[in-house]
Amino acid sequence: MATQAAESVWAETMKMSQVYAPTLRENPAEAEIASHRLMLRAGLLRKLSAGIYTYLPLGYRTVRKIMQIVREEMERIGGQEVMMPVVQPAELWHETGRWVDYGDEMMKLKDRHSREFALGPTHEEVITDLVRSEINSYRQLPVMMYQIQNKYRDEIRPRFGLIRGREFIMKDAYSFDRDQTGLDHSYDLVYQAYVRIFERCGLNTKVVEADAGAIGGSDTHEFMVITDAVGEAEIAYCDVCGYAANVEKAVCTFEPSGLAQETNEELKLVDTPGQRTIEEVSAFLNIPPHRLMKTLIYKAGSQVVAAVVRGDHEINEVKLARALGVLEVELANEELIAQVTKAPVGFAGPIGLADGVPIIADLEVMELHGAVCGANSADQHYRGVEPGRDFAPDTVVDVRMVGADDPCPKCKAPLSVASGIEVGHVFKLGKKYSQAMNATFLDEAGQEHPLVMGCYGIGVSRTAAAVIEQHHDKNGIIWPISIAPYHVIVVPVNYKDQQQRQAAEDLYRAVEDLGIEVILDDRDERPGVKFKDADLIGIPIRVVVGKRIGQGQVELKLRWEDEAEIVDVNTVVGRIQSILR
Amino acid sequence: MATQAAESVWAETMKMSQVYAPTLRENPAEAEIASHRLMLRAGLLRKLSAGIYTYLPLGYRTVRKIMQIVREEMERIGGQEVMMPVVQPAELWHETGRWVDYGDEMMKLKDRHSREFALGPTHEEVITDLVRSEINSYRQLPVMMYQIQNKYRDEIRPRFGLIRGREFIMKDAYSFDRDQTGLDHSYDLVYQAYVRIFERCGLNTKVVEADAGAIGGSDTHEFMVITDAVGEAEIAYCDVCGYAANVEKAVCTFEPSGLAQETNEELKLVDTPGQRTIEEVSAFLNIPPHRLMKTLIYKAGSQVVAAVVRGDHEINEVKLARALGVLEVELANEELIAQVTKAPVGFAGPIGLADGVPIIADLEVMELHGAVCGANSADQHYRGVEPGRDFAPDTVVDVRMVGADDPCPKCKAPLSVASGIEVGHVFKLGKKYSQAMNATFLDEAGQEHPLVMGCYGIGVSRTAAAVIEQHHDKNGIIWPISIAPYHVIVVPVNYKDQQQRQAAEDLYRAVEDLGIEVILDDRDERPGVKFKDADLIGIPIRVVVGKRIGQGQVELKLRWEDEAEIVDVNTVVGRIQSILR
Repeated sequence: MATQAAESVWAETMKMSQVYAPTLRENPAEAEIASHRLMLRAGLLRKLSAGIYTYLPLGYRTVRKIMQIVREEMERIGGQEVMMPVVQPAELWHETGRWVDYGDEMMKLKDRHSREFALGPTHEEVITDLVRSEINSYRQLPVMMYQIQNKYRDEIRPRFGLIRGREFIMKDAYSFDRDQTGLDHSYDLVYQAYVRIFERCGLNTKVVEADAGAIGGSDTHEFMVITDAVGEAEIAYCDVCGYAANVEKAVCTFEPSGLAQETNEELKLVDTPGQRTIEEVSAFLNIPPHRLMKTLIYKAGSQVVAAVVRGDHEINEVKLARALGVLEVELANEELIAQVTKAPVGFAGPIGLADGVPIIADLEVMELHGAVCGANSADQHYRGVEPGRDFAPDTVVDVRMVGADDPCPKCKAPLSVASGIEVGHVFKLGKKYSQAMNATFLDEAGQEHPLVMGCYGIGVSRTAAAVIEQHHDKNGIIWPISIAPYHVIVVPVNYKDQQQRQAAEDLYRAVEDLGIEVILDDRDERPGVKFKDADLIGIPIRVVVGKRIGQGQVELKLRWEDEAEIVDVNTVVGRIQSILR
Repeated sequence: MATQAAESVWAETMKMSQVYAPTLRENPAEAEIASHRLMLRAGLLRKLSAGIYTYLPLGYRTVRKIMQIVREEMERIGGQEVMMPVVQPAELWHETGRWVDYGDEMMKLKDRHSREFALGPTHEEVITDLVRSEINSYRQLPVMMYQIQNKYRDEIRPRFGLIRGREFIMKDAYSFDRDQTGLDHSYDLVYQAYVRIFERCGLNTKVVEADAGAIGGSDTHEFMVITDAVGEAEIAYCDVCGYAANVEKAVCTFEPSGLAQETNEELKLVDTPGQRTIEEVSAFLNIPPHRLMKTLIYKAGSQVVAAVVRGDHEINEVKLARALGVLEVELANEELIAQVTKAPVGFAGPIGLADGVPIIADLEVMELHGAVCGANSADQHYRGVEPGRDFAPDTVVDVRMVGADDPCPKCKAPLSVASGIEVGHVFKLGKKYSQAMNATFLDEAGQEHPLVMGCYGIGVSRTAAAVIEQHHDKNGIIWPISIAPYHVIVVPVNYKDQQQRQAAEDLYRAVEDLGIEVILDDRDERPGVKFKDADLIGIPIRVVVGKRIGQGQVELKLRWEDEAEIVDVNTVVGRIQSILR
């Protein structure tokens, strides 16, 4: 049969003496987190330059298995694989304004004729350009295309190995529909495919509501891997009802405290020499932080504003920008603060600011009575502050960051906050790009409409790292079977022993004959070294052929269990099959 | 079973109404050759920028099948797949001097910190850097690693679609051995793998001796696809003994003509007003070109030289550079010619040149008697020229280009010359890079030696185009089964006819169930349109379900045959299986 379908994607066997997987005994100093450390130590990855890596054979096998899972699930929902260029002409990015918007994160180059190009961080412009000349009728819709490819982002501080690199492997997909209903359907298909992809990779993910950011669009979800190790993004989630959202997006539920009666305390100016931070003022006045107000001065476009939250809360700049109707806000510098507050940094407050500086107060600020805030005067604060009486906010709106134990916006149970790694995202782009780039189709009645788009990404290389974050112990990686570089490692204790050698090789061939991917550790090394390497590399099933082979017995150990088991050599292949099944 | 091996690499079915393959009725003006034209017309490829393309779903399926064949054959010889970075730091290229040597062909960029990087045209520096820190013992040798990846070359004039692009897909491989014997073995393994790869892709290639060029090294062969369409490289080959070589490298056999007696003709100055080229002088004096001498002035490093060949021969600049021991030679400009010959362009000759200009004469020049050459004087030539008597060359050596009907250097039969596309190359690099970058290992005795390297490339995207050059007709592509995007297309003549539709869908499912990749043309189009598209896209087996289905018959047509065949619908699946087997 000439079809490729029946052929193996990977060579099924490898000898440890031949595999290029230089393991390291020591933890590399540069590696701050488990996945980075273990990918270097297990010989899966090597750094070429900051945020730029070579995938060694065992690492690339795992990456290719993830790619294959992604392909299968994307094909299952009708995705068609394409390969768009990495090098993209500047003109396309000018059409959407993103040549400027992307800023220094986009890697740029000039060709020999001084024409400008970008190394694609994403492909909305390229694919919209492609379809605008080819799709012109409703009969050609819907279409979903995807690709698996190197992407580029010139991170100011690359770190964490594959988690935050400058050259990384992404799967990106784009859907084109005739209307919002079509987009909702495409979005849902991809969403479900992503759930299956991460499950098959052995990842435990939380799907969170996210902010659309520079990509644009409306609905958007992120697939997050919770891990304490990496402060990539903070997410808030509820273990009771399953709600989860990026902290930048998570809604703060305003619960009236019942303490909303007036205190009739009078406004008093007090001296607070050198006390600038919430902690300092709280300690100095012996008043808890949740009775203080925190006031920060921001630039929002051409405007200067003061944002006020409770002393124990943090301002959420994404919410603030949205409340002000701008793309982003920027903290004022010392000079501007002095101008607006007539005081040095640390004494800003909502009472007596310069004219024309609007006050944006968080919902919960209005609950405070007899509170403390900066007096817009060096070394002084106010006590007994009463919102409404002593100052009138221009806007009262949710502008704070959600925190642990805040009530869940869906079920009111206390939220948890944890950091996580984003491994996937799905966006409803709508008509943002099709309108900017004039990508339209004609409906049944000959009416012209912009295409309705979605875009969808998976960090393929990052997924490999995220799996290690969730699957490792002190001895090394514990690969899920689905993406392990090999499934079985056969370790003869003494390869020079004729009987052990022969039994190990027989076993190796028997396993291979079943289409199971297997490594034979044929090195002339001490057993301890071999066991350490097998654990470090994280092969799921280890079979040790030692002296017991004289009694027809071998040792079977699963990487994720503590104890090994003595098994009859004649039944071990059957056991391996049933474990893998 | 959890192994990936048994799973399909590609989705096996597709409906024509859904596949994103916009076919074109007209030949695109930009496309000069068949592969470029057909890849655009069949909806396999779209241009984004000069020499930069998007692979559409059907095109990328074929490319991925080529990749898969490459992987299988590389794994079979012990190659291990890796993925090295595309973005490479300048420092590595400075170590070997190639940052400068590569010149404008290398695409370069600066990151946000103004550090310089290249988009890899090749990876000798990166892989040598990798192994120099990891390989230190003879016990780790030999190693062979390969990758399949986008490469970049800023061609001054991109053309011919995937044949000469700026972003293209290559498989590159690198071998590391302890000595020349090891390298010879690795080289031979790859050579044989390449023979199998191109055979499996359905390509007819000639393996030619080539010049190593900028990569460096000694032995090198190119795998060339002979095609009249593309003037990519000229090769000379012998149909009798199988000898083949790049014309730049092909040895010119000097066969004494037997006419080597002196003519005793006297040297005479003759007026040749305005006659500059060989053709003009030959016609003006009525003397055949093979009795003229052609003299060209070159710059070779700091030296200026005169190269002389017979009037009907061409100078081979690669041989000339080698004879002079320089990397390359450059034709002198008008000013320099005037200075050296004291005459305008067109009247150079070996007699009476400026002092200190060495004369390099081709072997066959010494055979000439009573010849004609430029007189280094405006509008004048010499007749009756006798080499040795009238001028004394400093070097007599093979410096000409081989031509059609020259004797084969192996068997003396007349050579053929044709143009071809290079789809693969193999190089014995030896110690060039390992010495420059200090990549060494210790032998059994603790002695340090540089690694002995080979490097090996296949143009993957170019191979797809080359296959089309060899496999097409006026109606479209004729894919070999091994790399066809799908194997079978089922075409109901009238999809609205209930009986035809049902039979077509049944057939589609029956073929799919056997793991054969199949397209159903479910479009509401005229049969002529469907047949044209199927031919254009080049699906190997077409099954037409028409009115004859009433009698239980369908039409079976192989893309490479002229006639269709009427087949019983109950036996057609068996026929398809036996064709694909």
